[in-house]
Amino acid sequence: MDPVKVGLLGLGTVGGGTLNVLTRNAEEIARRAGCDIQITHAAAKSYDPDSLTGLDRVEVGDDAFAVVKNPDIDIVVELIGGYSPARELVLEAIENGKHVVTANKALIALHGNEIFEAAEQKGVMVAFEAAVAGGIPIIKAVREGLAANKIEWVAGIINGTGNFILTEMKDKGRDFGDVLKEAQALGYAEADPTFDVEGIDAAHKLTILASLAFGIPLQFDKTYTEGIASIEPQDVTYADQLGYRIKHLGITRKTDKGIELRVHPTLIPHRRLIANVDGVMNAVLVKGDAVGPTLYYGAGAGAEPTASAVVADIVDIARALTADPNHRVPHLAFQPSHLSDTPVLSMDDVVTAYYLRMSAQDKPGVVAKVAGILGDLGISIEAIQQKEPLEGEETANLVMLTQPVLEKSMRQAIDSIEAMDSIEGKVVMIRVEYLDS
Amino acid sequence: MDPVKVGLLGLGTVGGGTLNVLTRNAEEIARRAGCDIQITHAAAKSYDPDSLTGLDRVEVGDDAFAVVKNPDIDIVVELIGGYSPARELVLEAIENGKHVVTANKALIALHGNEIFEAAEQKGVMVAFEAAVAGGIPIIKAVREGLAANKIEWVAGIINGTGNFILTEMKDKGRDFGDVLKEAQALGYAEADPTFDVEGIDAAHKLTILASLAFGIPLQFDKTYTEGIASIEPQDVTYADQLGYRIKHLGITRKTDKGIELRVHPTLIPHRRLIANVDGVMNAVLVKGDAVGPTLYYGAGAGAEPTASAVVADIVDIARALTADPNHRVPHLAFQPSHLSDTPVLSMDDVVTAYYLRMSAQDKPGVVAKVAGILGDLGISIEAIQQKEPLEGEETANLVMLTQPVLEKSMRQAIDSIEAMDSIEGKVVMIRVEYLDS
Repeated sequence: MDPVKVGLLGLGTVGGGTLNVLTRNAEEIARRAGCDIQITHAAAKSYDPDSLTGLDRVEVGDDAFAVVKNPDIDIVVELIGGYSPARELVLEAIENGKHVVTANKALIALHGNEIFEAAEQKGVMVAFEAAVAGGIPIIKAVREGLAANKIEWVAGIINGTGNFILTEMKDKGRDFGDVLKEAQALGYAEADPTFDVEGIDAAHKLTILASLAFGIPLQFDKTYTEGIASIEPQDVTYADQLGYRIKHLGITRKTDKGIELRVHPTLIPHRRLIANVDGVMNAVLVKGDAVGPTLYYGAGAGAEPTASAVVADIVDIARALTADPNHRVPHLAFQPSHLSDTPVLSMDDVVTAYYLRMSAQDKPGVVAKVAGILGDLGISIEAIQQKEPLEGEETANLVMLTQPVLEKSMRQAIDSIEAMDSIEGKVVMIRVEYLDS
Repeated sequence: MDPVKVGLLGLGTVGGGTLNVLTRNAEEIARRAGCDIQITHAAAKSYDPDSLTGLDRVEVGDDAFAVVKNPDIDIVVELIGGYSPARELVLEAIENGKHVVTANKALIALHGNEIFEAAEQKGVMVAFEAAVAGGIPIIKAVREGLAANKIEWVAGIINGTGNFILTEMKDKGRDFGDVLKEAQALGYAEADPTFDVEGIDAAHKLTILASLAFGIPLQFDKTYTEGIASIEPQDVTYADQLGYRIKHLGITRKTDKGIELRVHPTLIPHRRLIANVDGVMNAVLVKGDAVGPTLYYGAGAGAEPTASAVVADIVDIARALTADPNHRVPHLAFQPSHLSDTPVLSMDDVVTAYYLRMSAQDKPGVVAKVAGILGDLGISIEAIQQKEPLEGEETANLVMLTQPVLEKSMRQAIDSIEAMDSIEGKVVMIRVEYLDS
């Protein structure tokens, strides 16, 4: 079998990692793939030659568009990130009949529908294993490994920066801003941490997972996104006392009414395996009707873990080159002609349990009144704990867990509770997921 | 695309589950595969029609050899288990140009080399995802998802019965025989539990994982196998006090000298995710040089979890039907012409850390003498704890953890310790793995 020729766009962290892994493990990879995989061309604005191995066999330039048009190249690997010119480069590569591998979650989540349609018309493949949960082969698992199942829900820790921050807050009682600064110093968080801590990065990945799980078009704009910046150390502590850990989860679930698509901090019972996924690691829990729950864990970012997924995609494409395009694994797991128009639910229509914390004046009747408001809206209380006022303060913390209820009802209850004279400030609300059915 | 026609051998637990999943999820599966998958024929000695759906569209007989010869069938699914006639049926199916799917770990571990060679000569595929860890797509992960990596080691909880027993022993302080009886009553363990508790079933699966990870032929006869029947509640307790859990692990590791291939009870630090995999669940931890550690968790047995893997294999084969056979995923991950002859190491040459427990007379100098024996053999002690004698007994338990050392040296040390007058009976030895590098 002829060598497969790859054009690499970007020689930064992931691009460099990809070159290094392909160089170091060339023999092992060829023994698996049955052919050599050669990066013959690369385009990069700048790069550090000292950190790269095998660069001598690569023609490096700064014109990415020249690479995607190069007739000698079979597969274009897009590792420059961002929306533009990544989108234009990928579409141009497809137009030129190239297969594409990308690690770009933002690009796929926002422009994937357009990109896959172009690819299908041209009969080429676009692979994106590295776009979700880095080195964990989660796309392969959902798209192929669980093909027998009706997927019921997916819940994932899919942003390592956020998980590092929450882990430090739990283990050391530190506060959010303090840990964020450390994460930036360690290189886990970007100088502008918005995408990570506000949940946008996780929402990109969840959008992709939901499409693979349920066969719906990519709908990033319908993903509900809530970050972790407002999580306070006391909530981490109270959750722990109740037997829960707070994790930043991406959750997508198919219900009778539609598909839930939401990223937010979540209390999970601490005995669940996923509650014990700590630090920068990622994990995705997938519930299928036949297989039950399965979990996939590993590094969600970093040069070589991401390269691991990129190279696996290249090998997959090398193998599928001779297959009838109709027999390939569809981009979004389901045949493009058989995607579903099941609607994405608004948060008002989502049902979950809740953790509530409020600052209540330490006088009789407050708990009864709060409980009454909840009861009137049909909300059952699972647990209620009054925390003693701190020294010098007059208000006590009232912490409660509710049974599952419609979010619309919970928001209505919170409005009423916040209107009480004896409740000060806002009610803190964090969703609770049991992840057991 | 034409429907793919499947002949099913066996309508027991997994065969019935496969029929039921293919019937219930027919539409979902066809939307993914791009074609219908139909079980047109089945062979079974006996079955329970009330537990099966879709049986009306299947021609059921009792002659399995008639099914494997039937010219209308594309894929034969072997779910009768055991060595014979499973081996003859699979070889006959291959001879007749059928692709084969099997859940039969014993068959693949012992006869896989012969079966894959026959399949390669005939240009057909033999898929066996269900043979290792039930519904977890671990074969796909190792063979395809991690194709970029040099795999360094694999460690798995790959027998649910054994893990259920160890979990109950830990959670409830029960002893082995007591829990085994309950496992049999619950249907988790067979009436003859030998394969599960002596580690033979795990050794079958580990043999397969090692070949996929390192590209070596299947070598079941070289797998070291030690069961869990001798684990005592006190060892579970002492391990816990030291910060470890005892799990029955299959471990395969590539070292400079060769490949370790071993199934035995193992102490694991309790903070490792895999140490928290409880009950009948399975999990496999795979360390790749690029991706780092990844873990795959789910149900390792049961009708529908196993069927999930069987059906995923059928879909994979349906997709690969038109591909050039040279471009398919190789049976053992590496091209058959590129398998490696790296030797499997004897246990003497394995290096691990150890947990030791011995019954020592409660008098001065015993600890010093034991430590001296270890020291003379270059074995460093990590921790040592003397447990008070129980009421009415004269011997105390001496519990220690050692640093990693060659097993040959450890066995020599144990011989010397057991020869001491002040040590009574045998030394309990359980290997320790940190699973962090």
